Amino acid sequence: MTPKTPIAIDAMGGDRGPAAVVEGILRARARFGGKYLVFGRPHVLEQEFQKLSGSIPEEIVIRPANEIITMDDAPVEAIREKKNSSLVLAARAVREKNAAAIVSPGNTGAVLAAGTLILGRCRGVERAGIAAVIPTPEHYSVLIDVGANVDCRPIHLLHFAIMGMVYARVTLGIQRPRIGLLSIGEERSKGNELTLAAAPLCEQFFRSIDSDRGVFLGNIEGRDIVNGRADVVVCDGFTGNAVLKFGEALAFTITDLLKERITAGPVRKIGALLLRGAFRELKNKIDYSEYGGAPLLGVRSPCIICHGSSNPRAIMNALRVAREQIEQDICGRIERMVSEFTNGGNGDNLKRKGIVSAEERKRKEDV
Amino acid sequence: MTPKTPIAIDAMGGDRGPAAVVEGILRARARFGGKYLVFGRPHVLEQEFQKLSGSIPEEIVIRPANEIITMDDAPVEAIREKKNSSLVLAARAVREKNAAAIVSPGNTGAVLAAGTLILGRCRGVERAGIAAVIPTPEHYSVLIDVGANVDCRPIHLLHFAIMGMVYARVTLGIQRPRIGLLSIGEERSKGNELTLAAAPLCEQFFRSIDSDRGVFLGNIEGRDIVNGRADVVVCDGFTGNAVLKFGEALAFTITDLLKERITAGPVRKIGALLLRGAFRELKNKIDYSEYGGAPLLGVRSPCIICHGSSNPRAIMNALRVAREQIEQDICGRIERMVSEFTNGGNGDNLKRKGIVSAEERKRKEDV
Repeated sequence: MTPKTPIAIDAMGGDRGPAAVVEGILRARARFGGKYLVFGRPHVLEQEFQKLSGSIPEEIVIRPANEIITMDDAPVEAIREKKNSSLVLAARAVREKNAAAIVSPGNTGAVLAAGTLILGRCRGVERAGIAAVIPTPEHYSVLIDVGANVDCRPIHLLHFAIMGMVYARVTLGIQRPRIGLLSIGEERSKGNELTLAAAPLCEQFFRSIDSDRGVFLGNIEGRDIVNGRADVVVCDGFTGNAVLKFGEALAFTITDLLKERITAGPVRKIGALLLRGAFRELKNKIDYSEYGGAPLLGVRSPCIICHGSSNPRAIMNALRVAREQIEQDICGRIERMVSEFTNGGNGDNLKRKGIVSAEERKRKEDV
Repeated sequence: MTPKTPIAIDAMGGDRGPAAVVEGILRARARFGGKYLVFGRPHVLEQEFQKLSGSIPEEIVIRPANEIITMDDAPVEAIREKKNSSLVLAARAVREKNAAAIVSPGNTGAVLAAGTLILGRCRGVERAGIAAVIPTPEHYSVLIDVGANVDCRPIHLLHFAIMGMVYARVTLGIQRPRIGLLSIGEERSKGNELTLAAAPLCEQFFRSIDSDRGVFLGNIEGRDIVNGRADVVVCDGFTGNAVLKFGEALAFTITDLLKERITAGPVRKIGALLLRGAFRELKNKIDYSEYGGAPLLGVRSPCIICHGSSNPRAIMNALRVAREQIEQDICGRIERMVSEFTNGGNGDNLKRKGIVSAEERKRKEDV
């Protein structure tokens, strides 16, 4: 698998239909190069490409897929039954090594199911987790899991912490990510049953690795997701999903309230005109399309879940992130880190670990 | 207990010290009338009152309390050991019917412990819950629980739903609150073990009451906390705490980012000046001091937990909310609703309920 291997794209599942996806692919090709396998109804896709670029560039190959998994389909059933859907065929292309990563703006549950059932989980990883990028004043933080696992065991949170650390290094370029466990207070005694059991596991793991690779902060609070204190925030998928969706809506509500107020009356309208640039900068900062979708981490190949209503810019950025993850072998790094330390996910090996041999340290440094 | 009974205030536990609390009490007395028992170090409080109003109005009585529970104290231990603290003595005054409600800006965990251990839970309520008011575009929603119970059972969520409904009616003036169960998707199949078990309990309860009293929406998502779809959002205290603290920080981050950008350069500074009023309106809308603290619901008398850094305005509003809750007998209403339907909190009675007698319906209408 080389960086030359194409990325597979499910072009049919998004809320905006294939037009936005096709435009996103053309932009990604123009900016980052690369090859693309585009799955969907051939005549629809051909039309879209012709409309936008006159012809289909040779780096882009359309692969026929006549079924579509809709937003209302039950995820696992859809993956099993719609074998000729653009999503299933794109995932199978990755599994069969004809593509190196998959990007889809479709039904989130179905992409998650395709990732775990068709691509398969990394060795040692018990649950794949969805990571989301959250803007902070100076940079970004990674929130994991935002919805793949609603009921978690402590070892799952440790795996999320490891996967989040690798992701922060690879995609956000943070050399020494600070990892926090989301809880209701900073004190060690604060938390629910799950976090109280997960905290010592995480402590043990991060003590055992080179501290230049990542640092465990212990418990952090909801405010630390967004204030820049942590680079990676670890939580169960129920809490993460609630936080993420709440945050998206809150950002919109605040900007809507502001918009309503800054256009009330002629004086304010002039003020709003003078501040147009400032508002645009803010919008860009909190605009999800900047981050290119949420990766499903812990599966064998990069799998990027895009927002259902992704615009071309969001698709382009998702393809950029997929490319980065291929080039930096994020999946291999996660697999090595997790299986090295947790012995197949049961944590026994972790407990036995006290001293890390020079050889092991070397291997870790490669991760 | 009449509306003339004073409100007990813990004046010592807040981050800003007694000055902010004293000013808040003076403002509340000037605006809403009423009597106040103020617990703390007498000479400190006397000084503050003299500084602000020259003398101490006769409706305000200082009660000596020489110990202080700090933000770092372990809650339950502090309540047991610091028997002469302003918080414990204020709570005991309520329990002994010398005051009708308690307001404290102190250590949240300690106020929670004082509420459940000294005031005592309402009959039938298994867990008290903390409610927070969240601004929505048109009005407000109530999020419950935001931190009292990190690990919940399904019946607790039902009790939160009932308490949230009564609170929305009493404090937000919503005649027919729409109650939603926070989950990761709207479909009935979506949720974690807890919400999947709690949803049918809530459905059964809300089917059994007069639908003019409140309506159960089923599952809602994080976005619905803030978009106005629901008036009451029910969740476990771990999730609610994460969401609330994240939301507060996100609102600050967005306004900070905006502030930074609208003052970058002279043109923008003029624009910002013209929009001063708009920004102030937005700030008021998202300012927590407007809502007067978070009530602990499910205990026998009104108990308002204020933000540790409450300013005088926040204290004043907390005293207003306490007064409303006394006048409208919120605790009695909650107790009647919960014990009527859940037979001491075990849910057995709820399952047996099918048809509601005329007499029972009459009683419910009084609630």
